[in-house]
Amino acid sequence: MRPSGRQPAQLRPVRLTRHYTRHAEGSVLVEFGDTKVICTASVEENVPGFLKGKGQGWVTAEYGMLPRSTGSRMKREAASGKQSGRTQEIQRLIGRSLRAVVDLEKLGERQIVIDCDVIQADGGTRTASITGAFVALCDAISGLIAAGKLTESPIREAVAAISVGVFEGTPVLDLDYPEDSACDTDMNVVMTASGGIVEVQGTAEGAPFSRQELNALLDLAEAGIRELLAQQQAALAS
Amino acid sequence: MRPSGRQPAQLRPVRLTRHYTRHAEGSVLVEFGDTKVICTASVEENVPGFLKGKGQGWVTAEYGMLPRSTGSRMKREAASGKQSGRTQEIQRLIGRSLRAVVDLEKLGERQIVIDCDVIQADGGTRTASITGAFVALCDAISGLIAAGKLTESPIREAVAAISVGVFEGTPVLDLDYPEDSACDTDMNVVMTASGGIVEVQGTAEGAPFSRQELNALLDLAEAGIRELLAQQQAALAS
Amino acid sequence: MRPSGRQPAQLRPVRLTRHYTRHAEGSVLVEFGDTKVICTASVEENVPGFLKGKGQGWVTAEYGMLPRSTGSRMKREAASGKQSGRTQEIQRLIGRSLRAVVDLEKLGERQIVIDCDVIQADGGTRTASITGAFVALCDAISGLIAAGKLTESPIREAVAAISVGVFEGTPVLDLDYPEDSACDTDMNVVMTASGGIVEVQGTAEGAPFSRQELNALLDLAEAGIRELLAQQQAALAS
Amino acid sequence: MRPSGRQPAQLRPVRLTRHYTRHAEGSVLVEFGDTKVICTASVEENVPGFLKGKGQGWVTAEYGMLPRSTGSRMKREAASGKQSGRTQEIQRLIGRSLRAVVDLEKLGERQIVIDCDVIQADGGTRTASITGAFVALCDAISGLIAAGKLTESPIREAVAAISVGVFEGTPVLDLDYPEDSACDTDMNVVMTASGGIVEVQGTAEGAPFSRQELNALLDLAEAGIRELLAQQQAALAS
Amino acid sequence: MRPSGRQPAQLRPVRLTRHYTRHAEGSVLVEFGDTKVICTASVEENVPGFLKGKGQGWVTAEYGMLPRSTGSRMKREAASGKQSGRTQEIQRLIGRSLRAVVDLEKLGERQIVIDCDVIQADGGTRTASITGAFVALCDAISGLIAAGKLTESPIREAVAAISVGVFEGTPVLDLDYPEDSACDTDMNVVMTASGGIVEVQGTAEGAPFSRQELNALLDLAEAGIRELLAQQQAALAS
Amino acid sequence: MRPSGRQPAQLRPVRLTRHYTRHAEGSVLVEFGDTKVICTASVEENVPGFLKGKGQGWVTAEYGMLPRSTGSRMKREAASGKQSGRTQEIQRLIGRSLRAVVDLEKLGERQIVIDCDVIQADGGTRTASITGAFVALCDAISGLIAAGKLTESPIREAVAAISVGVFEGTPVLDLDYPEDSACDTDMNVVMTASGGIVEVQGTAEGAPFSRQELNALLDLAEAGIRELLAQQQAALAS
Repeated sequence: MRPSGRQPAQLRPVRLTRHYTRHAEGSVLVEFGDTKVICTASVEENVPGFLKGKGQGWVTAEYGMLPRSTGSRMKREAASGKQSGRTQEIQRLIGRSLRAVVDLEKLGERQIVIDCDVIQADGGTRTASITGAFVALCDAISGLIAAGKLTESPIREAVAAISVGVFEGTPVLDLDYPEDSACDTDMNVVMTASGGIVEVQGTAEGAPFSRQELNALLDLAEAGIRELLAQQQAALAS
Repeated sequence: MRPSGRQPAQLRPVRLTRHYTRHAEGSVLVEFGDTKVICTASVEENVPGFLKGKGQGWVTAEYGMLPRSTGSRMKREAASGKQSGRTQEIQRLIGRSLRAVVDLEKLGERQIVIDCDVIQADGGTRTASITGAFVALCDAISGLIAAGKLTESPIREAVAAISVGVFEGTPVLDLDYPEDSACDTDMNVVMTASGGIVEVQGTAEGAPFSRQELNALLDLAEAGIRELLAQQQAALAS
Repeated sequence: MRPSGRQPAQLRPVRLTRHYTRHAEGSVLVEFGDTKVICTASVEENVPGFLKGKGQGWVTAEYGMLPRSTGSRMKREAASGKQSGRTQEIQRLIGRSLRAVVDLEKLGERQIVIDCDVIQADGGTRTASITGAFVALCDAISGLIAAGKLTESPIREAVAAISVGVFEGTPVLDLDYPEDSACDTDMNVVMTASGGIVEVQGTAEGAPFSRQELNALLDLAEAGIRELLAQQQAALAS
Repeated sequence: MRPSGRQPAQLRPVRLTRHYTRHAEGSVLVEFGDTKVICTASVEENVPGFLKGKGQGWVTAEYGMLPRSTGSRMKREAASGKQSGRTQEIQRLIGRSLRAVVDLEKLGERQIVIDCDVIQADGGTRTASITGAFVALCDAISGLIAAGKLTESPIREAVAAISVGVFEGTPVLDLDYPEDSACDTDMNVVMTASGGIVEVQGTAEGAPFSRQELNALLDLAEAGIRELLAQQQAALAS
Repeated sequence: MRPSGRQPAQLRPVRLTRHYTRHAEGSVLVEFGDTKVICTASVEENVPGFLKGKGQGWVTAEYGMLPRSTGSRMKREAASGKQSGRTQEIQRLIGRSLRAVVDLEKLGERQIVIDCDVIQADGGTRTASITGAFVALCDAISGLIAAGKLTESPIREAVAAISVGVFEGTPVLDLDYPEDSACDTDMNVVMTASGGIVEVQGTAEGAPFSRQELNALLDLAEAGIRELLAQQQAALAS
Repeated sequence: MRPSGRQPAQLRPVRLTRHYTRHAEGSVLVEFGDTKVICTASVEENVPGFLKGKGQGWVTAEYGMLPRSTGSRMKREAASGKQSGRTQEIQRLIGRSLRAVVDLEKLGERQIVIDCDVIQADGGTRTASITGAFVALCDAISGLIAAGKLTESPIREAVAAISVGVFEGTPVLDLDYPEDSACDTDMNVVMTASGGIVEVQGTAEGAPFSRQELNALLDLAEAGIRELLAQQQAALAS
């Protein structure tokens, strides 16, 4: 049985709170159970150097954790003077996942910077970040359309992400921290509304895993992401 | 008149939400109007190197702003690889203000690290941080007493802080961002429950100010801090 | 057709040259076609701080590219003062992949540091690194056994890695640089001799990919890795 | 009694040596007793990025201490790779204090960089720096006028600074190091020739201080600064 | 006797392998016995900021050692975040030595960046680097001429370098690592084909050395460099 | 003729002012004409990690320039976050030069840190630093003897340094800045009282130089250093 009492295929309660802070063009608090991440989307009317004059835009992401979002206090990255390898891996993943559903030429020569800041962590911060960031991105795009800066949305379809893993022999959905630290295999899956896979990252923490396990995990993930996509839609409709 | 319509001696609505996040020994969301800061207190059973074996504890603070807590996105300090001079000034001020009301010998050989992370900024983030951090510190100390690690509180008295300034010729209390960017004189005052001054930092942004103006500002600050101390007490009593 | 004229399921010529440099306990030049990486294994008779006194060892990896291993010169990371996110991602992957096949308790309280330095790049540097690093690791372990420091090998089984991708609609094995920069989907697979998956990292560079494509890619990868494992065995036997 | 035998309201001997080094447009050795600081003013015919094209100039400051300006050797900041929070606080204070008396529009699109380097420290390095830096600034401005680059001085009035504190219960002027390390309250005051306050920074090192103490300290500071302003005038007249 | 059995005036076997890697405009593996360095020359069609618009080019160098090029593993400079003083000293020496034989105006407004990366170290890495880098530079220049970007070579004459030292009382040529760590005096000499000295850097590791010893060492170096110049010519002719 | 009107073999006026600042165990202002460097020697009762328990001491040096010690303002190294290659080269040279005349075993398990800070530069800052640092070192050693911590001096003999160069075809002694920037060959020589050479560093800035020129330069340097050694003696005797 799962420590939380959840069924293997059961997500934690998901909440997406739009307009969570005041200044950003998109601002969403995403909660996957006790994991809470503030996702903001900032529109900047310029592009990074390597895209200057190429007639396209850019979407990028940065990720951070408040020092005490975790059980024991982590060193503040701003104070230690660099971002950890884990932080960089996650923010690169978030950026790639969002770019996969945006038509960068339609976006025009502007950049949208997504910031995902974890205020409370209980496993799954990267998948919650992607799921919430997509909603923040939608709000930022809506603002551009409302302001007449875009005539149609460059977003091709929705994207969301979930973690799956093999916990005590059983494939389970949406690992919380106690499961994450104890599981054998840990996989993050990013998928679009049309069912396409954007990213699969599976890691054997203990024993290697088999193709059958991989397939079982992908099945779980696919179902979970479908639920998340529905929640995004509901949040954006409200 | 003030842009917000407030009276010169009127604070913004103040809210202190205890137990705001789950992991920290003390965790408070402090709101001064639209300024929102998460203050956590983390207990560590060791002291910094310079205090090893001296039979006393330490209280220190770190401060940060989410990149989009402000009107336009600020560069993430973890990404740029260092904390700005402003950040360091503020976190040093928060640390000194809290140490001023703690008997470090009674605290024993342990350290309490206060993290103040601004999730939305509208002026006064350092004074909100000090005011909220004191409540988080109290909760952390209560936890140590409840766990039998301390028999009596090392906190001597409460401490809170407020900004004051001369806005369009009039001394006003608790500057919000529009006032802060336009005012001539800006002062931050940190005071204790017994009326003692812990810090006064006054800066002439435009024309220098006179002793009379200084006194008028201190009068305003004193009254404002008395209100904040009452709010802290109410929050701790609830 | 592939730019190199290879069949879809065809690896580039693979060469594993042991004892490539003189000082390291294991030193292998691995070549996947024009991709050339020096993999060294260094034995250190201590463990990182977080493992002190835990009765187990550690295997970790660092990765680098010579500035002119690539078509246009890259900035030297030592000169720019930090390792890129890509570098950190790759070295974390190499470390995890090797730890997956080592019994860290049997290794004893010592650390093996793997350095993978790319002297010529033509796509697939991370998979070549893992494949070559495993051979260097074996040599280092043999040295420990020969020196009487270990009585049996802590290596549970062999591990190798390969890239696969969808290039112009066709799943192909072992992407070289022209394919890598043009392909829609790019996946790195790390597998053990017993067929277990250690890592799967698949990324849609263009359009998202389907479960069928994922399966086709994994089939290709499995066959390719079986060839690499045979090459490792041959090299270690010589 | 004060360790130095001084009266409570007595400054240490103050010396301002102009043209102390050869290259800078303004170069002053300022001595407050055993505290010795080299203040140079460098004129640069450009402005920082945020002021480009705004039709105004800038005055900024940097501060440093020679490693052995102090009783025990401090780590060299250039070697440790960053400036401490204290250093940044001080250089920001020096810059603000000088800008408060300069009409930046009259200065034109150029920058004056003030460097304050402590060669021997005995308390009061920041107040000595401000006092000496003003003289160096005047010399740099005179050079600009002599060179025909300015027709009138953008300096509105003189500025100087002094520390005050409560030492063994008595308010005293111009703290030296033994007093500074033992005093209860420490305040730095920056004032102009017309008696306006530019900065007040008071800190309770031990017990909080009262409004009466604050007033007594400000009275002392005001008298001390008047003496310093006279010394600056004498130095500039010679 | 020398640990290697060499005569005092005997070089180690020298090998210069051109076109060692594929991407660089010049790429040479230089071997002085067991010391092996990859030297690449990269042509960039721009110049550093301080030379913009001055109608001349630039030649510069960077140097690095693979972590396990040495007997015990060195910390990777990219990971520790800075280049050591030794690294910087060596790369500055390589750059100066090459610039001494290049007519920078004839080179035109372009930069050639030399990278010297030590893959195996056994003493003399800096002299091997200079000797090999010259050959890589020649190949890069030939490429520019072949491409019609230069009509004549800006290289005035050849340059090579060797170490000499006093080992157990005897002046010897081309120190290997066991000699280098035990010798009293260590000197690096850089000379041109016409016999001019470009650099002499002699250091007394133990007792100071005399003018006679200096002269004996320079005689040895001169003869050794003549041999190296012949080897360079042979390699470039092949 | 030399820009300064000096004879080819003429030093600039040399001054060595002992006890220049108050806190350091040795503190010397050294002046070679307009070049002025503060050299302090700090005694620390511990040794760097690599010497722990080896029964010997250490002498090391750090070097810096005040930002406006030069004709145009240099960026402050503490602000830019790292020491330049030139700075590191110079401080390594100063440290080696002093260690060459100290019996590190007799010094005992303590470290002497030499800080050389240039307050005004006019060429020759590294040779002035070495010459002044030796005097500061002597004062620090005398203090250790006076305090009973050493019974005899670990200093074997005196050491001093001077620059020489070929200026407009003539070998000249003690280059000032106008000569240094225009000369063809620039050499720094470090010698001991007994005439032994500790370091020779000669660089052809323009055309390579010959053995004859090298010898003429060494003759000049030897005579100049003899004068400097006499000045050191005189300073230490006063």
